[in-house]
Amino acid sequence: MPGVLELLPLEQVAFDGMVAMIRREFERFGYLPIATPTMELTEVLLGKTGGDTERQIYLVQSSGAADAGEDPDLALRFDLTVPLARYVAEHEHRLSFPFRRYQIQPVFRGERPQKGRYREFLQCDVDVIDRGELSIRYDAEIPAVINAVFDALGFGEFVIRINNRRLLTGLLRSLGIGAQVEALRELDKLDKRGDEAVVASLISSGVSTGSARALVEMVGGGVRTGDAAMSLLDEFRLDNDLLRQGVAETKEVLGLVGEWGVPASRFGLDLAIARGLDYYTGTVYETTLMSHPELGSICSGGRYDDLAGQYTKSKLPGVGISIGFSRLFWQLESAQLLPSAHNSVAVLVGLLDDDGLEESLRIAAELRRAGVNTQSTVVADKIGSQLKYADRNAIDLYVVAGPVERERNEVLLRNLRTKSQETVPRPHLVAAVKAVS
Amino acid sequence: MPGVLELLPLEQVAFDGMVAMIRREFERFGYLPIATPTMELTEVLLGKTGGDTERQIYLVQSSGAADAGEDPDLALRFDLTVPLARYVAEHEHRLSFPFRRYQIQPVFRGERPQKGRYREFLQCDVDVIDRGELSIRYDAEIPAVINAVFDALGFGEFVIRINNRRLLTGLLRSLGIGAQVEALRELDKLDKRGDEAVVASLISSGVSTGSARALVEMVGGGVRTGDAAMSLLDEFRLDNDLLRQGVAETKEVLGLVGEWGVPASRFGLDLAIARGLDYYTGTVYETTLMSHPELGSICSGGRYDDLAGQYTKSKLPGVGISIGFSRLFWQLESAQLLPSAHNSVAVLVGLLDDDGLEESLRIAAELRRAGVNTQSTVVADKIGSQLKYADRNAIDLYVVAGPVERERNEVLLRNLRTKSQETVPRPHLVAAVKAVS
Repeated sequence: MPGVLELLPLEQVAFDGMVAMIRREFERFGYLPIATPTMELTEVLLGKTGGDTERQIYLVQSSGAADAGEDPDLALRFDLTVPLARYVAEHEHRLSFPFRRYQIQPVFRGERPQKGRYREFLQCDVDVIDRGELSIRYDAEIPAVINAVFDALGFGEFVIRINNRRLLTGLLRSLGIGAQVEALRELDKLDKRGDEAVVASLISSGVSTGSARALVEMVGGGVRTGDAAMSLLDEFRLDNDLLRQGVAETKEVLGLVGEWGVPASRFGLDLAIARGLDYYTGTVYETTLMSHPELGSICSGGRYDDLAGQYTKSKLPGVGISIGFSRLFWQLESAQLLPSAHNSVAVLVGLLDDDGLEESLRIAAELRRAGVNTQSTVVADKIGSQLKYADRNAIDLYVVAGPVERERNEVLLRNLRTKSQETVPRPHLVAAVKAVS
Repeated sequence: MPGVLELLPLEQVAFDGMVAMIRREFERFGYLPIATPTMELTEVLLGKTGGDTERQIYLVQSSGAADAGEDPDLALRFDLTVPLARYVAEHEHRLSFPFRRYQIQPVFRGERPQKGRYREFLQCDVDVIDRGELSIRYDAEIPAVINAVFDALGFGEFVIRINNRRLLTGLLRSLGIGAQVEALRELDKLDKRGDEAVVASLISSGVSTGSARALVEMVGGGVRTGDAAMSLLDEFRLDNDLLRQGVAETKEVLGLVGEWGVPASRFGLDLAIARGLDYYTGTVYETTLMSHPELGSICSGGRYDDLAGQYTKSKLPGVGISIGFSRLFWQLESAQLLPSAHNSVAVLVGLLDDDGLEESLRIAAELRRAGVNTQSTVVADKIGSQLKYADRNAIDLYVVAGPVERERNEVLLRNLRTKSQETVPRPHLVAAVKAVS
């Protein structure tokens, strides 16, 4: 079926291992898991958004209801934010705020499938939500989570680009640019289309030539880390409140991220990050791999003023990020950035003759009790075939007690990685395996 | 939304922890993960089954396609077996056989919601598939996996009930009972409805009074472990090939399960297990909790002759089991069999004054680097409120460096479980936390 990522088992081992790392880092920062139903009421999903998204949702109906001519009242979630909003509104009085939640579940988009665009993909989100007010200090926690995740995943050096929508909008106001949404959308394309193209687009959307050039010059130049970021912020002429507030917030966030343990080289200010079509109101984030900028942002998010305005009267501001992991996995695989296949099975216990079955099963049971992932062979075969099976499946260790070894109370232990083998006294087997696995 | 299990965060921590245990045990036996798309082509899902299931599937269609008047060509999977069949057929030449796979994903049933019956629930499956023939010895591996899983989950003692469809059908033949499907379906109700009701139903479906009574007497009596099982099997008059083969298979399986490390008290023969409506052909399994038989089978499965006959010419016999985990979790929670709520957060780092923010963040970062799940407080508040938050959220440890502690280079460490607290020299903090968490 096109438009979905279906993996072979060893690829799935790698995929699941990375998702487990992401989950572990989310938990390390105290985020709690939630899981919402795959289907939400159609009215919940359509309430939040309009236009494009409406055409992209998957409507669901039981075959019985379809036969009865009823209209579909369920649909598959297209992100994890709308379900979070519904969840927080529904369970508000049983949750503790500030509420740090993570959610790792597939989302669905009814778009035409194309390379790296999936109809179903796994999304990994964290958000902090509070009631009433959410301190700007949380905006500095989010880069620490991003840093921990991508440090653990080990795809190479990366940089977290931070900006602020208030700052950007204040800047547009300062330059007398009225068409703000269009301008933000154009800015988002700066790294792909280049300065001149964006200036031209801005002008054709009604911005004066001078303002267009000034804007592109001001926000261009990529990411600035450390003192360079602070000096850049000091250069602004703070001629409106929005710009003043945006600059102050950005300074506070940039000043605090380091205290969370993020190395200075891994975060900075990038005034061209706009996340134009999203509902962010303050801080925004994008993250790029230093050696693979062409992959675009591998983790994005930001601050929003009110999560669930249409479901509850409480004001619920939040800040969070999202990793579209299926796409990222596919990109990394295509760029050959993934480590080589590794099996979750550590040991294959072989079987050379039927008389050895009980001993073979006992060996495997002992290894499992010692915490070693062990696959049993239950049909006797030649050692060559069994080694070939282990090799083809990237299983590193092969253990067998043939008639000779059983006679001597020994076991043969072969390491397929180092292509070495040894004979081990039967009572030492578990220790010998644990020493090399 | 009715018919789905949506948990509060700490319930989700418990749920996810148990799923992680199941996954770990599956991997311990060398099963490899696969994940198939939530949606399959409707023709794939409807190909396999007919009747009841057809009315229970959820049809899916993008909102764009619905507007265009197209027919839905996608549907949500209703089990993990049909997707496994499609997966194995599709990737057959890139898989290694015997193929041990596990799969932990939600499945969907478009039925009217009722207590403990979900429209979406998490299913945890393992199967071994081979090409051509699959040795009966694998039928003895499956109880070992069940044993490891429920041993790890710790819901109390359990027994794995093993039977064989060939044996049962041979028995029906032996007694001259023709209406086999109906008879198997009735036998499945033996523990719920009792002997007399089942005898009456059998008679009304055309079985002679003598045969009905003989059958119920033969298969009744519950589970028999160890030698009692073997003696029972020796009593049968082997007057047809099916019965002969069924008895031989059952003896081989029962004789081998112990070698896999399963205690003798935890598995046995129960001739009343029929799994009447399923497609099993040989060994069948059910598992019940000793102290909660009213929960019914918490893990069921069996052997089938051909997994994917409609998708490939290869004959792919298999054996496996399935745990309907959402329902089990709900049952255990209702029966108050779940351990008390436990937070994945080990430490809450408090904040009493704004001047302490940097030190507080540094403490948290150190704890995280040491592998401790740590939640930061970023807005200063009274110690009482912060302790109340930790208590309400089942966080065991609270750490804070107020002005006095910072002056003395110390940290206050409070254990909310033991209601004790101590002052720890700042450099010893990580060791002190690790000693009690």
